[in-house]
Amino acid sequence: MHGLLRARVVFLFTIAALLCPPSIRAQSEVESIRATIETILEARDHDSHAWEVISHLTDEIGPRLSGTRQAELAVSWTTATLEQWGFPTRNQPILVPQWIRGVERASLVSHHDHTIVLTALGDSVATPPEGLTADLVVVRSFDELRSLGRAVEGKIVLFNSPMSRDLVLARDGFTAYAAAVRYRGGGASAAAAQGAVAALVRSATTESMRTPHTGQLCYAAGHPAIPAAAITTEDADLLQRLSERGEPLRINLVLTPRWDHDVPSANVIAELRGRDRPEEIVLIGAHLDSWDLGTGAIDNAAGVTAVMEAVRLLRQLGLTPRRTIRVVLFMNEENGLRGSFYYFFGHRHEKHVAAIESDAGAGRPLGFFTTLGAEGRGRLNEYLAPLASFGPFELMPRALTGADTGILVRNGVIGFGVRQDPLHYFDHHHAPSDTLDKVDPEALRMNAAVIAALAWTLAEIEDLP
Amino acid sequence: MHGLLRARVVFLFTIAALLCPPSIRAQSEVESIRATIETILEARDHDSHAWEVISHLTDEIGPRLSGTRQAELAVSWTTATLEQWGFPTRNQPILVPQWIRGVERASLVSHHDHTIVLTALGDSVATPPEGLTADLVVVRSFDELRSLGRAVEGKIVLFNSPMSRDLVLARDGFTAYAAAVRYRGGGASAAAAQGAVAALVRSATTESMRTPHTGQLCYAAGHPAIPAAAITTEDADLLQRLSERGEPLRINLVLTPRWDHDVPSANVIAELRGRDRPEEIVLIGAHLDSWDLGTGAIDNAAGVTAVMEAVRLLRQLGLTPRRTIRVVLFMNEENGLRGSFYYFFGHRHEKHVAAIESDAGAGRPLGFFTTLGAEGRGRLNEYLAPLASFGPFELMPRALTGADTGILVRNGVIGFGVRQDPLHYFDHHHAPSDTLDKVDPEALRMNAAVIAALAWTLAEIEDLP
Repeated sequence: MHGLLRARVVFLFTIAALLCPPSIRAQSEVESIRATIETILEARDHDSHAWEVISHLTDEIGPRLSGTRQAELAVSWTTATLEQWGFPTRNQPILVPQWIRGVERASLVSHHDHTIVLTALGDSVATPPEGLTADLVVVRSFDELRSLGRAVEGKIVLFNSPMSRDLVLARDGFTAYAAAVRYRGGGASAAAAQGAVAALVRSATTESMRTPHTGQLCYAAGHPAIPAAAITTEDADLLQRLSERGEPLRINLVLTPRWDHDVPSANVIAELRGRDRPEEIVLIGAHLDSWDLGTGAIDNAAGVTAVMEAVRLLRQLGLTPRRTIRVVLFMNEENGLRGSFYYFFGHRHEKHVAAIESDAGAGRPLGFFTTLGAEGRGRLNEYLAPLASFGPFELMPRALTGADTGILVRNGVIGFGVRQDPLHYFDHHHAPSDTLDKVDPEALRMNAAVIAALAWTLAEIEDLP
Repeated sequence: MHGLLRARVVFLFTIAALLCPPSIRAQSEVESIRATIETILEARDHDSHAWEVISHLTDEIGPRLSGTRQAELAVSWTTATLEQWGFPTRNQPILVPQWIRGVERASLVSHHDHTIVLTALGDSVATPPEGLTADLVVVRSFDELRSLGRAVEGKIVLFNSPMSRDLVLARDGFTAYAAAVRYRGGGASAAAAQGAVAALVRSATTESMRTPHTGQLCYAAGHPAIPAAAITTEDADLLQRLSERGEPLRINLVLTPRWDHDVPSANVIAELRGRDRPEEIVLIGAHLDSWDLGTGAIDNAAGVTAVMEAVRLLRQLGLTPRRTIRVVLFMNEENGLRGSFYYFFGHRHEKHVAAIESDAGAGRPLGFFTTLGAEGRGRLNEYLAPLASFGPFELMPRALTGADTGILVRNGVIGFGVRQDPLHYFDHHHAPSDTLDKVDPEALRMNAAVIAALAWTLAEIEDLP
């Protein structure tokens, strides 16, 4: 009731804006949007469906790796839910790869078959079923690998480049991740180029309880595809210590992942149709698939929940924007980005005016990354002022604001990425520990509210920033 | 050099003590022992062998479950090391059980075969090789189980009794553990008594990254031995949530541990022989075996290291006590306490005047638990005053001061247990994450020093407290 009253106030502001000359109109537009944002923030806890959504995706459905039955259940359940909430919803058919994790284990045969805890990297090829046994060489960096030349031939290379704890503690975990994850992406081919038979990487995290973190690798053309896995930080530290003591290291590695043929899947697309310029689209997106080790709670049932709850909130408040707000739940972000490509090629002739992506966890919202320049950020900040009620809330410039919306953004669409507090994101990212208990319900509702606020602003203002 | 100088000062104090009448002598004894303790504290970082010992036990040897090759390597290496340090050392032959962990996995067949992360409890019997599939009943307590009567017949029972985080944060983790671990010990038989076919318990920890914690169970006579495992706190929370939503739960559980015949092993016994009353023994002990999932760093390579380093420190300082200080490295504490029993029955006619046990991790030392009454603690505190230089250092009364020395203490020997800061002990206790990186080298040296200080005091003072 309170929400509806507020909506009426907003409506009056909007009418007032239409009757006024431009400068006054601009001012009253700011006031009108701020008032709506305040309404959204106040409404976020009333009748929230956020916990219901994230619980269903993680507890009931579970891991949602592309091509699995659970990924398809996530498509059908979110489709049905968005329809039930009253949004026109459709599935865009796509084809996704099927990479199926098999057995994964390793032991240090040089040291009493000490267990090395690991997990295959996504897209890794398999070892022979009985495994491969080879000497291990530990390097700290690509430079160190290069300096070894062909000395790694026939061996297993471990890339032990620790993720920076200082950066993580400074709330800049993504910079730390970008540095660490180069080895996950390119380590296998770099090692293969020098004759290595397998590659191991240190898990990209600063917290561990012997916890392996998976993620996709990328084989470079022109080099043999060799098996690759991420080992825990504890095991990486162990191997580093033994190596520094000059001890020969020999490992047996068994990885039996396999590929199956591509299978049909879908992006889920729902709309809060614009009242005035429906052909102009403000996209809010998140990926529906997840890695297979945990239940993909922070990566990325949280993002899916936040964008779904954002449009639900707007609808619950009776708010119809000038432009269309389109929810896109992308399939296959984790190991292929197929949903992103299919979406782009299927919708590139439509007029996307902005793309907001949520794929940075379930921490409390601190702001947005955006491709907007200083002037645009300054203008937008005026509208978003009420978001500072959660604490400092900043628009920060960044060229890449999300993986799934990256192709849209590279093609000229203004990009936004929700900046969740990243302090604990990489503790559980791509790990078995990415489960519902890592999500704070209050922070999740805050994320839905800030996405609703930004989407409303971008879909409602007369002139885009 | 500095240490030797100090030792001479101590020697002079000791001489002075012998020449004085009793009351003055008591006072100068206090001063003499305090001076020695200060010497020990100062010497703890010079030429410490602590890191070398714990690194060898964990990195080089690895997990040391009774009956394994690594457990035997731990016996031979510690024996050789203590001999090399100049201590008369012997092995007391014992027989230990061989419980061999097999495959362990479970999936929630009622929910898309969701993985339940678990580990078999020590001594558990196996399921059929293909596993057993049964409905799951979640209970919070033994009372709740009893209230269900025969309703659990043919089912798997999950005991989901969370360990108290408040107690852990209040540095009283052992009380929290004692409450939680009743289900690990007695859950299987309690469930079997009501017809259950398997039992699961929530891992006894307050921190988890989907980390299972093993430990021994105890089948009660008169009930069928049913398979039992510890699941992670995340999985326990999941099953509790699903159960509370009224959803039927069905689990496939595969556990294939097996027993093999008992094999020979040993307790390691070394002495710093007393100069005056060598037949009176101050025992300092820790267990050499460990669980098999991690490398047994905090449980209990840390304790082994601390007691070994304690006598090494005394010897390095040229200190020969009035009574004998005997190091005992017990085998098979974790799953049998055989070393403890063999030690007792082999040495019960000797005169043990005190037994100090170190089996509470690698946190910084906060004091000792002891069976001494208030008067004895008051008297001892006078001698131990220099230990307060580390911060508050307390003697706290407790009937049980250690598992391996429990039988000695129940037979009248004064007991002491090192009180390490327990804040993070149960995070890694019995888990795969119990690895060397969890140990702070400085805290480890402090532990060696306080054990040396207490052992010296008890071995040196004229009249025992």
